[in-house]
Amino acid sequence: MTIYVEILPKEGILDPKGRTVKNALHQLDFPMVSNVLVGKLIQLEIESENVDEAVRLAEQMADKLLHNSNVEQYRVVPVEGVSK
Amino acid sequence: MTIYVEILPKEGILDPKGRTVKNALHQLDFPMVSNVLVGKLIQLEIESENVDEAVRLAEQMADKLLHNSNVEQYRVVPVEGVSK
Repeated sequence: MTIYVEILPKEGILDPKGRTVKNALHQLDFPMVSNVLVGKLIQLEIESENVDEAVRLAEQMADKLLHNSNVEQYRVVPVEGVSK
Repeated sequence: MTIYVEILPKEGILDPKGRTVKNALHQLDFPMVSNVLVGKLIQLEIESENVDEAVRLAEQMADKLLHNSNVEQYRVVPVEGVSK
């Protein structure tokens, strides 16, 4: 089972990477971009047939290792098709 | 409108970060994790009321700036609720 852990900077936390990307996009003639956050996407393959169990395990992994709760928030999402 | 650009290493490309995370998860007693990929999640706020237009613009941004087509693949996803 494929699970995404989507990690982004918490609201109110300065995101210098996001600001840099936004500025670059404006210079590339994308003025319609009003905000950018840059985070991490972690794709987990979990040996489980049960979606709820896989999500619960992924949340434990996020809490114990994958995300920094001081400055990041995360969301766990089961994936149907994997990104191409 | 909020759009995610989900960027992951292409299939067949060595992902040393993913391997490191997998090993760490095994040591933390998550043996059910069989593979890990570590990529980027970019959250874009695009001033547009049209989902199709926002997705098309985000694809242009991914092609021109956000992803490295040599080693990465991406997917553009409109977001309903933003990650908490």
